[in-house]
Amino acid sequence: MREDDGAIVILDQTKLPGETAFVRLLTLADAARAIRTMQVRGAPLIGATAAYGVALGLAEGRPLEETLATLAATRPTAVNLHWALSRLRTALQKSAPAERREAAWSEARAIAAEDAAANAAIGRHGLEILRSIVVQKDAVSVMTHCNAGWLATVAHGTALAPIYAAHEAGLSVHVWVSETRPRNQGLLTAWELAQAGVPHTLIADNAAGLLMMQGRVDCVIVGADRIAANGDTANKIGTYLKALAAKAHGVPFYVAAPVSTIDFDCPKGAGIPIEERAAEEFGAGDVPIANPAFDVTPAALIASIVTERGGVPPGELARVKP
Amino acid sequence: MREDDGAIVILDQTKLPGETAFVRLLTLADAARAIRTMQVRGAPLIGATAAYGVALGLAEGRPLEETLATLAATRPTAVNLHWALSRLRTALQKSAPAERREAAWSEARAIAAEDAAANAAIGRHGLEILRSIVVQKDAVSVMTHCNAGWLATVAHGTALAPIYAAHEAGLSVHVWVSETRPRNQGLLTAWELAQAGVPHTLIADNAAGLLMMQGRVDCVIVGADRIAANGDTANKIGTYLKALAAKAHGVPFYVAAPVSTIDFDCPKGAGIPIEERAAEEFGAGDVPIANPAFDVTPAALIASIVTERGGVPPGELARVKP
Repeated sequence: MREDDGAIVILDQTKLPGETAFVRLLTLADAARAIRTMQVRGAPLIGATAAYGVALGLAEGRPLEETLATLAATRPTAVNLHWALSRLRTALQKSAPAERREAAWSEARAIAAEDAAANAAIGRHGLEILRSIVVQKDAVSVMTHCNAGWLATVAHGTALAPIYAAHEAGLSVHVWVSETRPRNQGLLTAWELAQAGVPHTLIADNAAGLLMMQGRVDCVIVGADRIAANGDTANKIGTYLKALAAKAHGVPFYVAAPVSTIDFDCPKGAGIPIEERAAEEFGAGDVPIANPAFDVTPAALIASIVTERGGVPPGELARVKP
Repeated sequence: MREDDGAIVILDQTKLPGETAFVRLLTLADAARAIRTMQVRGAPLIGATAAYGVALGLAEGRPLEETLATLAATRPTAVNLHWALSRLRTALQKSAPAERREAAWSEARAIAAEDAAANAAIGRHGLEILRSIVVQKDAVSVMTHCNAGWLATVAHGTALAPIYAAHEAGLSVHVWVSETRPRNQGLLTAWELAQAGVPHTLIADNAAGLLMMQGRVDCVIVGADRIAANGDTANKIGTYLKALAAKAHGVPFYVAAPVSTIDFDCPKGAGIPIEERAAEEFGAGDVPIANPAFDVTPAALIASIVTERGGVPPGELARVKP
């Protein structure tokens, strides 16, 4: 995403990987629609887009609370959305009314810049995990799910940040990319990795268990949409199945996410709302469909949560509380 | 499937559910292609089609061993294929040369009739399992994977046979149908269930863990492509992930299959060959893809294997050995 003359320019992820189309967000309604329809997706990018959405709303002359409420209603699971809106509210409450419009742009820019910096740090910390595997095996094969790459963030990505860092450091890294039905975000991950020259293989979500049983996966790294205070982690539907398979085969399972994805007000995963999305996402015609978009991986299945402040066992998240 | 004037008429499953197209198999090559391209699929139906394929080959005047070898090479995982071919060889070796053509038709008809009868018996035995859940909960919600319905067999189905039996017995039964990427056999299951009026909901394969965590699944019933002597079960890729999730949540996991699917010569699951299918099945364009078609669920995750001779714990398969 980038600012351009009072607008925000985003890459329309619903068109990828077939088409690289940019969309200009000019209004609050544009920003809200971009989040709801998943033109932008990924918890950190949703947060940054919401922050800019506040600036767009105030620039239109809309009341702050209406603006915040409109954006808060777009998607329920990613906590970064609420975190960003809360930051905007706090910052704007400190500003004089005449300065609020400019303060909103300024805070949104700060959120975007911090996200890029946090992800770079996640990449550095995660790189050490991958390096420790390469030291033993000469190469590392990482499984990921959904897309937690630069497309899902302001820059670098979360789950993919350590992979990019390892590739740039010259380590031999290969990525198992799960398709991630029903929205096929795995194709976005494959597209990102191909652009960066990182070796990768697309698989059906169904294949994760077999590959671990065959010993072909050294670790799993996924992003997160909301992490409860006890380490239970909501992420794209299907993450939990990979975590169960990883546990069954002794494969370490990592969550990579900025501290802003941790919801310290949510004690455990059972309190995280799970978004139910439209049946049309399946493209299956007139069939009864349930389409929950996220699941919750219990903390007990997670080896470490890799934040910009380093990797933390899921039971010790209080250590990185701001 | 049905015989018609020296040909076999099959329903082309690659066209379903959009189109109901019947194909006439007139030659050995037709039968082999139907199995390889999955116009017919499902272990029992593959077995029956192979049996009729032998009859077609002999009717063309082809040598028996060439005919058997052509059919054996179509697909590697389903043991019913080899079981059926072995039965044909044994039966034909007992026949006088002049009677072999007719003996092949006769043995193929016997295999088809026995499959239908075995599946009806599986339905009766599985019905008692479902009835015991309904007694406690007034209703039962069953998760299945892939398609192990009448489409996958000569009649009734394997995993779906108990569901049809329960529905016909007036029990309140609902089915969670997983999409089953990459070939989407879940759409075949949804189509079958809709035709029979059985309530069902299509889900992404990824959603299985969440639904079990939410307590919305009472049991899992799947079919099988090959069961090793120790109970390890090869079935459509993704079955293993469902079994892991079922174990994690105390949901009983059943395999429904005729005794002909048990490979008593294969001591354990590690000996079962896993078919790798073409990348084109993903429809994902020019992306590196791995496409294993089956995985192996360890016996320890299976509550019972429901055969035509009743349900058997996976460690006691010798009890149903012919």
